[in-house]
Amino acid sequence: MDKIRYFGDRISQLIGALDFQKEPPELYDPIAYTMNQGGKRLRPLLTLLACDLFGGNIEKALYPALSIEVFHNFTLVHDDIMDKAPLRRGKETVFKKWNPDIAILAGDTMFALAYTYALKTDAEIVPEILTVFSKAAIEVCEGQQYDMNFEQLQSVSIEDYINMIRLKTAVLLGASLEIGAICARANTEDVRNLYNFGIELGIAFQLKDDLLDVYGDTETFGKFKGGDIAANKKTYLFLKALEKAGPEQRDQLQYWFSQPSDRDVELKINSVKSIFDSIGVQAITEEIMTGYFERSLGFLSRVEAKTEQKKDLVEFATRLFNRTH
Amino acid sequence: MDKIRYFGDRISQLIGALDFQKEPPELYDPIAYTMNQGGKRLRPLLTLLACDLFGGNIEKALYPALSIEVFHNFTLVHDDIMDKAPLRRGKETVFKKWNPDIAILAGDTMFALAYTYALKTDAEIVPEILTVFSKAAIEVCEGQQYDMNFEQLQSVSIEDYINMIRLKTAVLLGASLEIGAICARANTEDVRNLYNFGIELGIAFQLKDDLLDVYGDTETFGKFKGGDIAANKKTYLFLKALEKAGPEQRDQLQYWFSQPSDRDVELKINSVKSIFDSIGVQAITEEIMTGYFERSLGFLSRVEAKTEQKKDLVEFATRLFNRTH
Repeated sequence: MDKIRYFGDRISQLIGALDFQKEPPELYDPIAYTMNQGGKRLRPLLTLLACDLFGGNIEKALYPALSIEVFHNFTLVHDDIMDKAPLRRGKETVFKKWNPDIAILAGDTMFALAYTYALKTDAEIVPEILTVFSKAAIEVCEGQQYDMNFEQLQSVSIEDYINMIRLKTAVLLGASLEIGAICARANTEDVRNLYNFGIELGIAFQLKDDLLDVYGDTETFGKFKGGDIAANKKTYLFLKALEKAGPEQRDQLQYWFSQPSDRDVELKINSVKSIFDSIGVQAITEEIMTGYFERSLGFLSRVEAKTEQKKDLVEFATRLFNRTH
Repeated sequence: MDKIRYFGDRISQLIGALDFQKEPPELYDPIAYTMNQGGKRLRPLLTLLACDLFGGNIEKALYPALSIEVFHNFTLVHDDIMDKAPLRRGKETVFKKWNPDIAILAGDTMFALAYTYALKTDAEIVPEILTVFSKAAIEVCEGQQYDMNFEQLQSVSIEDYINMIRLKTAVLLGASLEIGAICARANTEDVRNLYNFGIELGIAFQLKDDLLDVYGDTETFGKFKGGDIAANKKTYLFLKALEKAGPEQRDQLQYWFSQPSDRDVELKINSVKSIFDSIGVQAITEEIMTGYFERSLGFLSRVEAKTEQKKDLVEFATRLFNRTH
C-alpha cells in the first residue's frame, strides 16, 4: 500500500516537472492542460509495480511509465474529437476548449513526446520496449475503430464487444506491465504471464466501467450517470440485455437506442435502466467481470516472484475491481 | 543516376509489398489508399543515399527509410484535415473520401506503424535513430502549428516564415539523411554536416514549391495553379511582395488576401500575380532559394566521403532544385 502511494507520488512528481512552456504555446498549452488534469495514473503505476515485482530498479522504468501515460492521454484527446465529448475528468475537452485542429496536432505531438520519453532508459532494452509499445499503440487504434464501427451497426456480438475492449483498453494495461517487466529484465515466460494478467484485468476494468456508468454510487469524473445510455453506447450491459430480452423489451431497448442523445434524456436513462434491472444485467455482468478478474489473478499466480512482492499488484488489481466510481 | 533509380525501385517494392489487408478494413483501407498513391518518395531516397554515401549497407536502412515515408504520409493525412484540402496528388484526401474521424485514426495508426518499421534494423542503432526521428516528428508538429498560426496573423516576418518551413519541411529531410548516415555508422561530425545539408536543401525545396505554385510550367500534382494565392497562403512570395510593395500595392495585396478562397478566384490569382510580377518577387525568391541551395552543397562538401560517392546526392539535390513541377 505504501509502495503504491510512493510510486504514484513519483509519477505525479515526474509529470508535474514536465516543461511545456515551449513555443508555440498554441501547441503546448493544450498538452500541459491535458497532462495536468490528473486521472488515475493507472498505467504508469502498473509499469512501476511490474518492474518492482522482479526486483528491478524502478528509476529505469520511470520514463517508460511516463511514456505510456502520455500516450494514453494522447488517445483520449483524439477519442474526444471522434466521440464529440464535451467533458473529460469534469473539464472541457481539448477540442472543445480550443478546436479540433489544435486537438489533432497536440495529440500527434503527445504521441511523438511519448516516444521520446520511452527512449529514456537503458539503450539495450529500448528496442524491446518500443516493439511492445508500438504494437499496443496500433491495437488501441484498431480498438477505437471497432468502437466507431459498432456505433453504426445494428447488432454487435458479445464476442466482438469483448474483442473491442481488449484492443481499446486491455492491451495498454498489458503493455504497461510488460514494459515494467522488461525494465527489470524478467524472463519471457514471466513477461507473457504478466501481460495476460493485464489483458484479463483490463477487460474486467472496462466491464466495471460499463457497470459504474449505470450502477455507480456517485457521479463519475466528468461523466453524468447513465451517460453511456444517453449516448446510445453499446456497452456490455446493453448487449447482454438485448440478448436476454423478450420481444417487447427488445423493441423498447432498440427504440430508446435509436433516439438522439439530447431528447428526454432522464426518461430514456430511467426506462433503459428499468429494463436492465428486470433482466438482471447487473448481476450477469458482475459475474462475467469476476471471471475475468479471477483469470487475471491466475496469470499473476503463475509469475515467478515472491508472494510478498505480488501483494502490491494483487492489492492494486483488487482496488480497481472494487472501485465504486 | 542508375543508383538513384535502383534505390527508388527498392523503396517502391517495399511499399508495394506492405500488407494492409488487415482488420478492421475501415482503418486499414485508408492507410493502403494513402501509401499506394505514390509521391516522390524523396525522404526514403535521401536515407538510402546517405547510407550509401558512407559505404553503409542499404539493406539496414530500408525499413528506417520506409518509416520516414510512412510518417510523412501520416502528416499529410492529418494536415489535409486541418487545411480542409479536398485533393492530394490529384485524388480525394482521406478525410474527404471517408471522414475526419477515420482520417485522424488512420493517421495515428500510420504514426505507430512508422515506429514499428523504424525498429527493423540493427538493435544497437535503434535508440539513436528513434531519437532523431522523434525529435523531427515533434518539430514537424511545431511547424504545422506555426503554419496554422500564420493564417490568423495579419503580419508574418520573413524570418518567422523561414523558421516555420524549416520545422514543417526541412527538419524531416535533415532527419532522413541523418538516419541514413547513422545506419552507415558515420561519425558525429559527418552526420551533423549531412543534417545541415538537408535543412538548407529543405528550405530551398519549400521555396521552390512556393515558386512553382505561381510560376510552375504546368499544373502540379493535385493542386491547381495559384492554389496558394486562392487559399490566402502567406508564402515567401506573398510576404516578400508585401515587404517590397508600395502603399497602393500593399492595400491591394491585403484586400485580395482578405477574400474568401471561393470568390472570383481567377481574377484574384491574376491580380495578385500581376502585383508579384511588377515587384519582381520571382527573381528575388529564386535568388534567396539559390542561396539556400548553395549553402546546402557547402555542408555536403564538408562531409568526409569520396567525391564519386557524393555525386548521387548532388545530382539528386540539383534535380529537386531544377524541377519544374
